[in-house]
Amino acid sequence: MDIKSIIKKKRTKQELSNEEIRYFVGKYTKNEISDAQAAALMSYIYINGMTEDEIIHLSIAMAESGDMISLNEISKDIVDKHSTGGVGDKVTLILMPIIAALGIPVAKISSRGYGISGGTIDKLESIPGFDTEVSSQGFRDILEKTGICIANQSLNLAPAEGKLYKLRNEIACADSLPIIAASLMSLKLATGSDKIVFDITCGNGTYIKTRENAKKLAKLLIRLGKRLDKQIGCVITDMNEPLGYCIGHNLEIQETIMALQGKMPEDLENVIEALGSLMITLVTGNKNQAENITSIKEVLKDGRAYEKFKAMVEAQKGDIRFVKEPELFRKAKHIMPVLADKAGIVEHIDADIVGSIAIYLGAGRMKEESQINRTAGITLNKKIGDTVNSGEVLAYIHTDDEEKVNGAIHNLQEAFQMTDRKVTVKSKVLEVLQ
Amino acid sequence: MDIKSIIKKKRTKQELSNEEIRYFVGKYTKNEISDAQAAALMSYIYINGMTEDEIIHLSIAMAESGDMISLNEISKDIVDKHSTGGVGDKVTLILMPIIAALGIPVAKISSRGYGISGGTIDKLESIPGFDTEVSSQGFRDILEKTGICIANQSLNLAPAEGKLYKLRNEIACADSLPIIAASLMSLKLATGSDKIVFDITCGNGTYIKTRENAKKLAKLLIRLGKRLDKQIGCVITDMNEPLGYCIGHNLEIQETIMALQGKMPEDLENVIEALGSLMITLVTGNKNQAENITSIKEVLKDGRAYEKFKAMVEAQKGDIRFVKEPELFRKAKHIMPVLADKAGIVEHIDADIVGSIAIYLGAGRMKEESQINRTAGITLNKKIGDTVNSGEVLAYIHTDDEEKVNGAIHNLQEAFQMTDRKVTVKSKVLEVLQ
Repeated sequence: MDIKSIIKKKRTKQELSNEEIRYFVGKYTKNEISDAQAAALMSYIYINGMTEDEIIHLSIAMAESGDMISLNEISKDIVDKHSTGGVGDKVTLILMPIIAALGIPVAKISSRGYGISGGTIDKLESIPGFDTEVSSQGFRDILEKTGICIANQSLNLAPAEGKLYKLRNEIACADSLPIIAASLMSLKLATGSDKIVFDITCGNGTYIKTRENAKKLAKLLIRLGKRLDKQIGCVITDMNEPLGYCIGHNLEIQETIMALQGKMPEDLENVIEALGSLMITLVTGNKNQAENITSIKEVLKDGRAYEKFKAMVEAQKGDIRFVKEPELFRKAKHIMPVLADKAGIVEHIDADIVGSIAIYLGAGRMKEESQINRTAGITLNKKIGDTVNSGEVLAYIHTDDEEKVNGAIHNLQEAFQMTDRKVTVKSKVLEVLQ
Repeated sequence: MDIKSIIKKKRTKQELSNEEIRYFVGKYTKNEISDAQAAALMSYIYINGMTEDEIIHLSIAMAESGDMISLNEISKDIVDKHSTGGVGDKVTLILMPIIAALGIPVAKISSRGYGISGGTIDKLESIPGFDTEVSSQGFRDILEKTGICIANQSLNLAPAEGKLYKLRNEIACADSLPIIAASLMSLKLATGSDKIVFDITCGNGTYIKTRENAKKLAKLLIRLGKRLDKQIGCVITDMNEPLGYCIGHNLEIQETIMALQGKMPEDLENVIEALGSLMITLVTGNKNQAENITSIKEVLKDGRAYEKFKAMVEAQKGDIRFVKEPELFRKAKHIMPVLADKAGIVEHIDADIVGSIAIYLGAGRMKEESQINRTAGITLNKKIGDTVNSGEVLAYIHTDDEEKVNGAIHNLQEAFQMTDRKVTVKSKVLEVLQ
């Protein structure tokens, strides 16, 4: 067996065997297969696809390429939530305390951000002292005590997936559905969660551009789940406009806390409710969405979700004062308004452009080793459907770097598409599949 | 412009512009585009092909990625010969002195061997003292004095081609016709030769496996030549059986000298005559193949070709005693016969297997930095069509490494395919195109 034969086989549309896939993953993890060889194989997979058998073999091989943990041993009811990422996506931070407040244990292994999708771990670390590097035992202890723990992927979980993820970004192959499916499944196999809800984002602010592909991926994940003994539900959400009003680390944590205190933007609320309802269904078996959403609204309204968030922050050594008084978060040196140059109704806010500007301002990593600036980011003042007068504020940019102000303002204006016609605001939730 | 967009464009079967191709070649040469990114692009080119415009842009961009020399300034009549490589291929070494003996200047920039194709430069250096590292001026001087000079590609000629060549081998993409064509043309553009004869080898002992693909490549090169003001002729030759009887450095130089002294194996002679005749046609315009071949036979018979070889060796500081007495070349410690285990007629000798065994014995490089063993190699005692008695010698293996003897003998037996039926010996020259 050798990598060149494997490459040729996939190029000529033949199905790879389990042994061939394990050979590739094993050698690639140990750097005995080069990035160039892996890139060639990924490119042919991009063109020729993979069978479900191949995807399952790849998922398992990647999961087994590193450490394996078993969240399902802590509790059979632990439900995992995973998003394919987006701009302004703070859903995990809000949703997990809500679910925990409902008595469903929430244990999440998360990662740092890369590209225009911010990382949950990075955002949590904006709370001074917050410790995401918990040990395996610490993880269990915190979970037992508070029913919620979100930890950094500091274990060597599915390293092959990590390597391939970076490679795919480098070679414009991030949107290959079979590879995305295998990547997601490998992470879930490595953490051992049996009930998983996927937020499949689609649109220009994420790597799955069309609703059609998002639906294909969702169906594929559900089929794979059946074969791998996992209960899987998917919510397809629209990621053409940033989610909520805030983009950036401190800004998103502030928005999270305010949402848990009851001030939740409507688009975010729709997504939280759809995902949360599905999580409840997976654990309780209750398929009545209206009832599940009522439960969610209750724990938000009576403060239990907020209290659960506070409990998590305390258990993970974060400074609780920042949760109580979000205005304590440090602000950027320059907070400058972006003004509308004409009146109209907002028809579209390009999430890809907004995400790219946020990175430009310092709020994201373009390379793994990049430093993020916690105060940098963007706050939207107008969302799709809002009426705008000429000269009114569309958004604010937040940056410590004065030189970046003018360029960012100019580009952010371009991200707003205006119209004279009435704009119907649609829910970001496009479809729920199970 | 960025590499990801270029990758996506080729993936979706769009034609790349000259600017995009130059961007890729420029950045890849400077390591600002990664091997993985180049591998993805090459893979999509493998699947989706290239237009002739794209190939021409790629050829020119690769040629201009390094130093450029102008052989055509030395003489308009200089004719270049280039082979796509094979096992036991010592054609250049024999053919160039023949052509020079006919009064046609022969200047060749050659390279070292890689994989199962031996390199002309490596073989010449088997003659003690032979200096292939000549300066630009030295090259002209030797050429003026003797009419022949073969020098190592020590200049930085088409470095992008060199990088891509290695990459393509790594990712099983060596047989992509548009890339092969662009590679060959880039080298010829970088050396400035205007008249070129290509030996397009096909079969299992080279990277172009089928005659059909060899013909496609030949036609493509001729069309490209017309657009780039180059006179191009192609001979398609069969590389399923090793060429001649000897494989290995010292062994091939000995076979070369004996061929120039008039003892030329028939398969080698056919190839030499077809290529030589075409070279003469390109320079003199004489298309009468029979006449051209007669000229070739004459300079071989009357010793002028041999004298020209000697003159070249002397001019390039090689020890002339070795040319006069080829038995002076050092021999391997172990020269062991490979015996036939049954009687029959040789139907096929697998060049790929023979080449691989030769490398295993030390006669080739699998990596650029590998050392070659000059005495290692294989001599065939039987060729296709020969009758063999059981226990008769099929071939000899030559190696300094006793441990390799048994494995090599066993594998070399497998390379011989025997039959009971009569075998018609066909010329290795399959087709001549111009």
